[in-house]
Amino acid sequence: MAGIIQPKVLKGFRDFLPSTEIPRRKLIRALEDHFISYGYVPIDTPVLEYAEILLSKGGGDTDKQTYRFTDHGGRDVALRFDLTVPFARYVAAHHHEIPMPFRRYHIGKVWRGENTQRGRYREFIQCDFDVVGTDSASADLEIMLMMGAGLKALDAGESRIRFSHRGLFNRLLEKLGLQGQTAEVLRIVDKIGKIGADEVRSLLGEMVGAQGTETLLDFITPTGDNRRTLEKMTTLAGAAGDSSALRIKAILDAVEEMQLSHGLVLDPSITRGLDYYTGIVFETFLDDLPGLGSVCSGGRYDNLTGLFMKQPVSGVGASIGLDRLMAGLDELGRIETASSATDIIILMLDESLLAKYQRSALDLRQHGLAVEVYPEMKKLGAQFKYAEAKDIPLAIIIGPDEAAAGTVNLKDLRSRESYDGLTLPAAREKAKGLLGEK
Amino acid sequence: MAGIIQPKVLKGFRDFLPSTEIPRRKLIRALEDHFISYGYVPIDTPVLEYAEILLSKGGGDTDKQTYRFTDHGGRDVALRFDLTVPFARYVAAHHHEIPMPFRRYHIGKVWRGENTQRGRYREFIQCDFDVVGTDSASADLEIMLMMGAGLKALDAGESRIRFSHRGLFNRLLEKLGLQGQTAEVLRIVDKIGKIGADEVRSLLGEMVGAQGTETLLDFITPTGDNRRTLEKMTTLAGAAGDSSALRIKAILDAVEEMQLSHGLVLDPSITRGLDYYTGIVFETFLDDLPGLGSVCSGGRYDNLTGLFMKQPVSGVGASIGLDRLMAGLDELGRIETASSATDIIILMLDESLLAKYQRSALDLRQHGLAVEVYPEMKKLGAQFKYAEAKDIPLAIIIGPDEAAAGTVNLKDLRSRESYDGLTLPAAREKAKGLLGEK
Repeated sequence: MAGIIQPKVLKGFRDFLPSTEIPRRKLIRALEDHFISYGYVPIDTPVLEYAEILLSKGGGDTDKQTYRFTDHGGRDVALRFDLTVPFARYVAAHHHEIPMPFRRYHIGKVWRGENTQRGRYREFIQCDFDVVGTDSASADLEIMLMMGAGLKALDAGESRIRFSHRGLFNRLLEKLGLQGQTAEVLRIVDKIGKIGADEVRSLLGEMVGAQGTETLLDFITPTGDNRRTLEKMTTLAGAAGDSSALRIKAILDAVEEMQLSHGLVLDPSITRGLDYYTGIVFETFLDDLPGLGSVCSGGRYDNLTGLFMKQPVSGVGASIGLDRLMAGLDELGRIETASSATDIIILMLDESLLAKYQRSALDLRQHGLAVEVYPEMKKLGAQFKYAEAKDIPLAIIIGPDEAAAGTVNLKDLRSRESYDGLTLPAAREKAKGLLGEK
Repeated sequence: MAGIIQPKVLKGFRDFLPSTEIPRRKLIRALEDHFISYGYVPIDTPVLEYAEILLSKGGGDTDKQTYRFTDHGGRDVALRFDLTVPFARYVAAHHHEIPMPFRRYHIGKVWRGENTQRGRYREFIQCDFDVVGTDSASADLEIMLMMGAGLKALDAGESRIRFSHRGLFNRLLEKLGLQGQTAEVLRIVDKIGKIGADEVRSLLGEMVGAQGTETLLDFITPTGDNRRTLEKMTTLAGAAGDSSALRIKAILDAVEEMQLSHGLVLDPSITRGLDYYTGIVFETFLDDLPGLGSVCSGGRYDNLTGLFMKQPVSGVGASIGLDRLMAGLDELGRIETASSATDIIILMLDESLLAKYQRSALDLRQHGLAVEVYPEMKKLGAQFKYAEAKDIPLAIIIGPDEAAAGTVNLKDLRSRESYDGLTLPAAREKAKGLLGEK
């Protein structure tokens, strides 16, 4: 006999058992339905692309973490590490075929050869939604509002969006003469939630001196009132009348009129490290689990499609952290776990009744029930144990006597109650009643 | 300015526009619902696995076509080329955690560096469903019946399953002294649909002589009657009383009793080239498009999990050719194409009414309608053109006058009829009525 190969998965990669995959698929469907209700359409792009395309944006960690290799045809290819760069490439390739403004969602796996020590996975699902082809307050607002409503639909409760605007931030850096150090300053400010204000002050001090540091820290500290925060930001950045200040004002006006102000916090410490953002940037936190971190983040990018087309289109979008959201819902006890969605199992008491079992199952399925037939004649104890392992609530039992009499016995496996001698249609109705009580 | 990077995809890979991705996602959802109604549960496995695992089964073309490379950690890894080998690995890894018999479905992308000349893609979606942990007529029957019912549910009409049994075929080869050449004989017989009986006769003749060839050709020719075909197969193979002959009989008995015989044809020319099949093998053809080829194929494999575990479990399963099925449904005009699922577009007549537009959209969505807001104040002509490109049937128009009066105008973009001066709830009910008439 040839040796057995160890059935192991790569480090940072995961198998999903049904008990996890069932709620994950439900969550994805609910998200899809939510996106569709906002007019977003699905697209798909290849998992594998030319490395030149995926790495065109540049950026230290990404380059190092990307799975990259040479294919059979000698092409330099890579596995996508996000859905944003492929989307920019897609927009450039198809801008004549898609109606602009283009609202799309895309749910798919991405790969990053990250250090798994930090609890990160090397393969995970991203859920992105974006609008490209318009730079408007309406699109900014829509992208931010979508997630709040979506989280409620997913039973995640109330949430709070913390947003800012990179244009205002850049304006401040210009005023401080720091425009050449934007990336470094962003990186430091982005860490304030993790390392605290003192550490940020010390790091910034080395770069921009005491005066600049205090201005920066003042700028990124929210006041507790959106209007006052905006006023302070505008004043410090010397940006009165700037389009970025006006954009924030338009957004604040709209959410106020919509009576949704409580869900939107202007928080200038939000910067989203990534350097392709040029407009609003935001993160989303669950009220019930603020320590979970952002479950949905994004912003506006003006230049990303410019890598692939001469007349770039502005876009705004967000990405949902599905693993984190699932973990949060799980922690809140709001994920219904089940090992199957089967309503009824038809037990096998006699192999010669195979056709009867299968026909009964077909009939029940035609009436909307999820039904499986136990496929071999094992002891009833083993069959009941199987039903329990799959969380199946009801069983139908047909032995030779019932088959001869044209009846079935229905058993509620939760209450252990039996309903014997029913016709199949009667059992079906009874089953529907019992399932309704679930 | 840095040069523009050509936004091209790799040869054999595809972008999907919404007009294709929308029906594809619908089809996948319908398949999932179908699988679930039979008690099948979803799982997921990594796209990337150890090459040793994926290539453990061996087999010429697979090895050559697999995307294989060395990762950052120096591991020899590969992209999965099917969902069957990863499933065998999964069963071995988790057999203590999953209830047996285990019914699972898995829908995911796979990659093969095939010659694209033949209209093949290098990235495509497979939809697999399998039962492992039981070798029973009930499971064989279920796997075959599932697809017939599924195709009807997908509006593909009636279909016909052509099935055979590799055990009987092997028995015949033994009798002819050809057991060492099983793979070659299978490869030749498998081509009969493409190259015709004469060519098969000539190829076999070189290998097995005139007498053997005639026996083989006689064996693989169906009689037009399942019972007579079985009798002929059994006689030629000298397999009376063999478990494989009994299994076919049990299946024929059951479908006859279920009055589904018309859908199941015993066709001994069906072999499924792959060498891991050991029991039933089958292919599925649409009555309305027999020339399309098989849309769902599979069989029983006894030894596949044995690559990864000491006590292998038998399994039976099938794989749906999603691309082919989509092409067939499209050819039959049974795919509803639409560029979105949006019911209503709210046009933007005045930027200062942004909050009103967004609030109205939220209200309509809460009542089950898919609604989008046009995000900027373009000319109405451009907004209507956008609505048309997205196949949006209804528009809501709110200008300053309507806003002041607290009314909206509803327009049916298909009939060009307008319903003016409605309250939002009245417009909502009217819209539902108009959409019902779709």
